[in-house]
Amino acid sequence: MSNPTAALLIIGNEILSGRTHDANIQFLCQRLGEMGIAVREARVIPDETTPIVETVRFLANTYSYVFTTGGIGATHDDITAACLAQAFERPLAIHEEAFQILKNYYGDKLNDARKRMALVPQGSELIYNPISAAPGFQVENVFALAGIPMVMQAMFENLGPRLKKGTAIIHKTITCAVPENNIADELAIIQNRHVNVDIGSYPYFLANGTYGVSLVIRGTDYETINKVAEELVEMVRHHGAHPHIE
Amino acid sequence: MSNPTAALLIIGNEILSGRTHDANIQFLCQRLGEMGIAVREARVIPDETTPIVETVRFLANTYSYVFTTGGIGATHDDITAACLAQAFERPLAIHEEAFQILKNYYGDKLNDARKRMALVPQGSELIYNPISAAPGFQVENVFALAGIPMVMQAMFENLGPRLKKGTAIIHKTITCAVPENNIADELAIIQNRHVNVDIGSYPYFLANGTYGVSLVIRGTDYETINKVAEELVEMVRHHGAHPHIE
Repeated sequence: MSNPTAALLIIGNEILSGRTHDANIQFLCQRLGEMGIAVREARVIPDETTPIVETVRFLANTYSYVFTTGGIGATHDDITAACLAQAFERPLAIHEEAFQILKNYYGDKLNDARKRMALVPQGSELIYNPISAAPGFQVENVFALAGIPMVMQAMFENLGPRLKKGTAIIHKTITCAVPENNIADELAIIQNRHVNVDIGSYPYFLANGTYGVSLVIRGTDYETINKVAEELVEMVRHHGAHPHIE
Repeated sequence: MSNPTAALLIIGNEILSGRTHDANIQFLCQRLGEMGIAVREARVIPDETTPIVETVRFLANTYSYVFTTGGIGATHDDITAACLAQAFERPLAIHEEAFQILKNYYGDKLNDARKRMALVPQGSELIYNPISAAPGFQVENVFALAGIPMVMQAMFENLGPRLKKGTAIIHKTITCAVPENNIADELAIIQNRHVNVDIGSYPYFLANGTYGVSLVIRGTDYETINKVAEELVEMVRHHGAHPHIE
């Protein structure tokens, strides 16, 4: 199994200042996982040229795909296109189709600021935006998406067919009212027996005083996942738990 | 002004798989910002030794402080202590006070798995956990916190006094029903006139069809922020808007 890999690059002072709660990482991780594309890391960085250029270069060289969010509007803090042009040593150039899209959408309200949204790294392929017209773009293996979740999601669904898919990453969760420390050793034995799946152990404490653990099995091989699920269910039942499986 | 800097390292397959929505980045960014500690980046990486060790080394060398979340329990996927020991070339050792805390909390239920939670990089200082006893730890400029938000937050409030504070980063937000592209050029002029504050422009579209922009001024100089706020208010009023200031 060698699934394509991905990194997410969240360009956003508004996240790093704590003003805005990021809503893009989870969506992209879920959708890419369903496509069998393994998200290996996500980074949130400021709206500044040097960090963006250097990080994009590193991630584009390291992973199959990079998805950026944010910074593709027309204000002074929207520098993603310029940074990606610099990262790939391409000039920024007016994309004719993007220009037409903006012209059709804005009509006689197409001011200079809006025209700038047609500037992308030369040779980029557009990513259509069914919500607010201004397109994202793909340059090499980097996909520049909007930061507004609704727009980002619509763009992502449009570019999906371009991505090389892997074997879908599936998961099964076993939740039970057992403290995770009571089963830690047995859990490690089961994990060591099945190295091609990943077993995560996530304890929870609820406000009403109840607690327990969610054991999440992740992998691409359906049979192994079911086998591991059976072993985990049997193990937690020995601890007197009534596991919930989903 | 040279405020201390920070990076966040979210250790979590559960985030990268899309199962869990991260709830720690925003809390830490907000609280650190209030303390005048500028969060320069946040990374989400998998529960794997090599990425954790390499990333911790890089971030600890680059920023004043690093805050990790996750991976400090007692199951096989809790490898933060071992990775931080490796990153700083220290042995893992039983921390006597941590051991006593666990013994007092668990009594005769202190099994081998729970004892392992007293293993930290030699010479670490504990970070107390008023929720579920098992402490976090500080090794050099890295603070290892729990992944469960409630526990992480309580730990953070305990370690606060240890951090060297900077000038609080304050912000003011001007929201108005103007498309951001209509004011993009004037916005850039105001930003260029005041380089020691950062003006972010965040367009919004609501489900009811209304739209507009939030202009966020951030910095450490109260007077400049107020001055910029006045200029922005005047500018958007010229566009017929009735700005809301907070």
